[in-house]
Amino acid sequence: METTTSSTTAQIIDKDQLLTHWLGHRKVTRRTLEAFPEKDLFEFSIGGMRTFAQLTKELLAMDGPTAKGLATDEWEAFDEEKTELTTKAALLSAYDDATSTIEKYWKAITMEKFQEKVVAFGQYEGTGYSTLFYIIDNETHHRAQGFVYLRALGITPPNFWEQY
Amino acid sequence: METTTSSTTAQIIDKDQLLTHWLGHRKVTRRTLEAFPEKDLFEFSIGGMRTFAQLTKELLAMDGPTAKGLATDEWEAFDEEKTELTTKAALLSAYDDATSTIEKYWKAITMEKFQEKVVAFGQYEGTGYSTLFYIIDNETHHRAQGFVYLRALGITPPNFWEQY
Repeated sequence: METTTSSTTAQIIDKDQLLTHWLGHRKVTRRTLEAFPEKDLFEFSIGGMRTFAQLTKELLAMDGPTAKGLATDEWEAFDEEKTELTTKAALLSAYDDATSTIEKYWKAITMEKFQEKVVAFGQYEGTGYSTLFYIIDNETHHRAQGFVYLRALGITPPNFWEQY
Repeated sequence: METTTSSTTAQIIDKDQLLTHWLGHRKVTRRTLEAFPEKDLFEFSIGGMRTFAQLTKELLAMDGPTAKGLATDEWEAFDEEKTELTTKAALLSAYDDATSTIEKYWKAITMEKFQEKVVAFGQYEGTGYSTLFYIIDNETHHRAQGFVYLRALGITPPNFWEQY
């Protein structure tokens, strides 16, 4: 029996579209980071929550390492301390580096990987797709909390729907 | 040339998994709604934002109607007023009804629909997948804002990662 190429079979979302979706969310997160005054980024929070700088460090511990992990099966230790990131400029630069890491490893992620079992960071069991969807959702979740911090500071956040 | 069934071709996420993903997010949103004291649900907000009741009404205007729209190509007018939803019990009931609507229409959404052009609510151009991903992301976004409201009220929100 001949097999068809994947392009002839209906996909819910294809790999290029998923990368565009992910990078689109990252553009909104980067604009959110940019919108914070330096001081508030590291000091402001509500209800005992983490600052947006701390939340961003969590995102940075997950994004590039997940792309690399899915591409190579090598998972770095989960590191959200990143004590060297003490300025807004350093966070923005690290965020851009993570975007480059994602773009670098994306092609090496196989289509099969999304349905394979993955133990992310050596501890979180799931599949490739569930791991990736989780970290995109987690970024959407924490960025939305940053939106509330900005509103509380009297600053208009970026538009959620402008993911380009 | 023979064609293979879709199950033999690698998918990033299959249709059953996408429904589970969507309903999993809804479980967290429902717990968030449940965590609000009645009064705060309709009155509390931060920085001039909408109350969590108002945000929930926006979600209700999108969720069931999107499942129906993708299944039938019939899009209801976008209605986030829902003036009858004046109690927490009414919001929870409407939320459960929307979950039933999603479950009812899901099977009727074709795999092809996810890649077809869609004009959601007669005004938002996209594809089936981009429309659905957008409304799930929008729910994640507004629910996260509800998490901050809860923290500001001294209430522990549900666990983000318990999507079951």
